Amino acid sequence: MKTLSDEQKQFLLSTIRDVPDFPKKGILFKDITTLLNHKEAFTLLMDHLHERYQEYELDYVAGIESRGFIFGAALASRLGVGFVPVRKRGKLPYTTVSEKYALEYGVDEIEIHIDAFRGTNKKVLLIDDLIATGGTALAAAKLIKKVNEELVEACFILDLTFLNGKEKLLPHTQVYSVLEIV
Amino acid sequence: MKTLSDEQKQFLLSTIRDVPDFPKKGILFKDITTLLNHKEAFTLLMDHLHERYQEYELDYVAGIESRGFIFGAALASRLGVGFVPVRKRGKLPYTTVSEKYALEYGVDEIEIHIDAFRGTNKKVLLIDDLIATGGTALAAAKLIKKVNEELVEACFILDLTFLNGKEKLLPHTQVYSVLEIV
Repeated sequence: MKTLSDEQKQFLLSTIRDVPDFPKKGILFKDITTLLNHKEAFTLLMDHLHERYQEYELDYVAGIESRGFIFGAALASRLGVGFVPVRKRGKLPYTTVSEKYALEYGVDEIEIHIDAFRGTNKKVLLIDDLIATGGTALAAAKLIKKVNEELVEACFILDLTFLNGKEKLLPHTQVYSVLEIV
Repeated sequence: MKTLSDEQKQFLLSTIRDVPDFPKKGILFKDITTLLNHKEAFTLLMDHLHERYQEYELDYVAGIESRGFIFGAALASRLGVGFVPVRKRGKLPYTTVSEKYALEYGVDEIEIHIDAFRGTNKKVLLIDDLIATGGTALAAAKLIKKVNEELVEACFILDLTFLNGKEKLLPHTQVYSVLEIV
């Protein structure tokens, strides 16, 4: 099950709900809460990630706030490795390093604790629920490298491939998407 | 391991970092990121929760945004049950029910999707990282009951017992805290 069959992908996609005009007019939001509360779907997805990443000999899984926490912590716990949160500005209590990224209007900023990883040159997987334009993921990838860790791969449950986010990340890390919307 | 030994509790507590004056002057913040990135600690904690709750025959684990997502999703995935996020106002894309709760100054509001649980009278565990005064947890407990589910227990990794949050919850549900700060 290192890659899912087309049928399995179709099944997972069928559990994701489209919500029109959220968070604002014109955006078709991909609601993954209907995948999470479907135990067969959530289990299939996590079994797949577990099987894929157990061969990577990871030291850490880093998840992006806040839906990345869900998949990242579940995977870290299954693999028996540490979990590291990448958070929006002002949420982490200790000394952080931060990275800005562009929004449609203006900029936003994410942070990681300066001592987020114990030791150095640890093997890190970055995970988030969705990659769209890739701005947040790129900032998170840079943060992990800033604190001197080896970013082994960036993993997304859903890739909106028409927004080309993956292209932004490829100079920095491998990318794996479980599901794609073309 | 249905209850941890005093030594195991001391070990887990030793991995939680105190950060003074966060988020504001005078508050001693309990930073659980140093437990999460300590793989022996995170694994011990999740093994304990897994063992405790596998006998409860849960249908769902509900986690409170956003640190409750970490423990809740990890536990749900280990148990093979669904995960349901309880979120701050405006974050959930579909129709929600909401509950207000008091802050030191003013009020805040959390929400759950109206169809968060598939079916009715499902057995739900509520989880968050920490219980202080219990306002958020009480609101979350009410939400789960509002959508007509059986709230089996509320679980916290850390209970600041001197703030008596547990008392607020006990009329509504059982409460279990892994660690206590008295």
